[in-house]
Amino acid sequence: LNPAWRAQAQARLDRLTKPQGSLGRLEELAAWYVAVREDLKSSLKKKVVMIFAADHGVVAEGVSAYPQDVTFQMVANFLQGGAGINVLARHVGAEVQVVDIGVKYDFSGFSGLISRKVAFGSRNLAQEAALSRAEAEAAINVGIELAQENIAAGADVLATGEMGIGNTTPAAALAAVFTGEPAATVTGRGTGVDDAGYRRKVEVIERALALHQPDPRDPVEVLAKLGGLEIGGLTGLILGAAAARRPVLLDGFIATAAALVAARLCPAVSDYLKAAHRSAEFGHQVMLASLGLRPLLDLDLRLGEGTGAALGINLLEVGLKIYHEMATFAEAGVSGKDS
Amino acid sequence: LNPAWRAQAQARLDRLTKPQGSLGRLEELAAWYVAVREDLKSSLKKKVVMIFAADHGVVAEGVSAYPQDVTFQMVANFLQGGAGINVLARHVGAEVQVVDIGVKYDFSGFSGLISRKVAFGSRNLAQEAALSRAEAEAAINVGIELAQENIAAGADVLATGEMGIGNTTPAAALAAVFTGEPAATVTGRGTGVDDAGYRRKVEVIERALALHQPDPRDPVEVLAKLGGLEIGGLTGLILGAAAARRPVLLDGFIATAAALVAARLCPAVSDYLKAAHRSAEFGHQVMLASLGLRPLLDLDLRLGEGTGAALGINLLEVGLKIYHEMATFAEAGVSGKDS
Repeated sequence: LNPAWRAQAQARLDRLTKPQGSLGRLEELAAWYVAVREDLKSSLKKKVVMIFAADHGVVAEGVSAYPQDVTFQMVANFLQGGAGINVLARHVGAEVQVVDIGVKYDFSGFSGLISRKVAFGSRNLAQEAALSRAEAEAAINVGIELAQENIAAGADVLATGEMGIGNTTPAAALAAVFTGEPAATVTGRGTGVDDAGYRRKVEVIERALALHQPDPRDPVEVLAKLGGLEIGGLTGLILGAAAARRPVLLDGFIATAAALVAARLCPAVSDYLKAAHRSAEFGHQVMLASLGLRPLLDLDLRLGEGTGAALGINLLEVGLKIYHEMATFAEAGVSGKDS
Repeated sequence: LNPAWRAQAQARLDRLTKPQGSLGRLEELAAWYVAVREDLKSSLKKKVVMIFAADHGVVAEGVSAYPQDVTFQMVANFLQGGAGINVLARHVGAEVQVVDIGVKYDFSGFSGLISRKVAFGSRNLAQEAALSRAEAEAAINVGIELAQENIAAGADVLATGEMGIGNTTPAAALAAVFTGEPAATVTGRGTGVDDAGYRRKVEVIERALALHQPDPRDPVEVLAKLGGLEIGGLTGLILGAAAARRPVLLDGFIATAAALVAARLCPAVSDYLKAAHRSAEFGHQVMLASLGLRPLLDLDLRLGEGTGAALGINLLEVGLKIYHEMATFAEAGVSGKDS
């Protein structure tokens, strides 16, 4: 980002009727948004939460507390407006888009779903490559294209959402590869596996890393081997948004794994990202630190779907309202510091 | 609070389409609100931010970076809608009430202000008691009465706001008395004093504590000696709200000093309080820990006015929307855990 835009935005923030810097991270968000958009008058109107949904062959290893059918059932719940992300998106005035990029279910007859299915789920990463390289590239391209379509339609900010029973396993595996940490350091309990399930999950990731020997210098190959079509879609979303100078609010563990892939492909994307929250999922902080991102919120959330990102939209909007709506010292006739 | 209400609320939260507890502190807020209101159907409609404004004789010691006139100038700014709290209150749909409880200014001719002036500011606590005991009691009573009036008018939640150039000095002095920590541990830079100003501020508080020898077992006397009419008003607001079973969202450093006074007068009030945020003002965390409160947000805010509390209203509202609007597993036809 060009620091001149941030400096000009901060100069206005410093003239508002408050001690300089006293609105902390709300000011940071406003100045960041201006710098991303390169427009001192930039507003935040159209907000989109994009939920990429996919299934995971690795559930055969018993790494999730919920059955695989929950992925498609939750897609139906999103379309009906009954999920957590629907409630939060309504609250913050964001549109929810649900993308089938790889659910193991035939959604013929469902309306409202964006059908960009690359495959009926990934394969079991503990036994074989989760995706072919072509599938991984296709998933990334879906994300790029949908980002471009949304931006062409006027989206001011994109928030990452996802659904996929079992997807904390590939996300933790990606985290291990890109942060260099052992599996146990970046693996959490996901939707809530018990102690035995947790040990199994770590062991599955260790086995997959030993089997595939993924090379972090080839991020697409890492994504293919350890996979997750929704993670590929999110990677593309981040790349497409950053290329078009649109800000992205990252949700939690899964989204941050996608951000690791995207940042390895193009380090400059980090400038266009804010981590909306620190997930309660163990290991998220390690991933955030690796990206140099400081989370805005820390509310013990671990639902995913984009729920934390939606709350981040709210903070971004507050920051911009501060920037645009507060009176300056001159306008309000308030004396300045040490005057 | 009666734990049965919280348990019943949590039972509903556990039936919603998400892993149990995965919405973390949003669930905590919803269950807390239900328990405070003792109503499983309780909604959050009328939200009020009450700003108590007062001046402080201790500014004569050079403890603030801003001139005293800023207090009344900011009151005018609040009434015109140009301050940070106005922007945030509009964002969260809260009414802003501005109470002159002790500003050193004659507001004749101003409309929209709630005039409950106890005195034209406090006296210099470094040299004499800031308030008489009668003044301290009067300030507390103003807060209690205004809480009662708002609740009678249907307020569902009250958020604390304040304005008073110099007021981090009495707040830090109160913190020192009630937490037992030395002045340097609970004193910050307020609106932004330089190093010399900061040393002066700590020294002023140490001098005041040595002069008054305040006894924490007599909280009203401590409030009188170290003073702050807006702190007294906030103390009353907290007491009045808790007595009527209405939740209070605490803003930052000043509000938490008032909560310390209120909790010493009546320890049960803590059940009715949530700390909306951790202020960037040094020492706030010590006060929160003393009250057993864990802040919801940590956004480096140090403006006061109720800005952090307004953001807390938003989170409370989100929690309640989750509680009321999300579909249950049964309603959405989603399979449960380990099914």
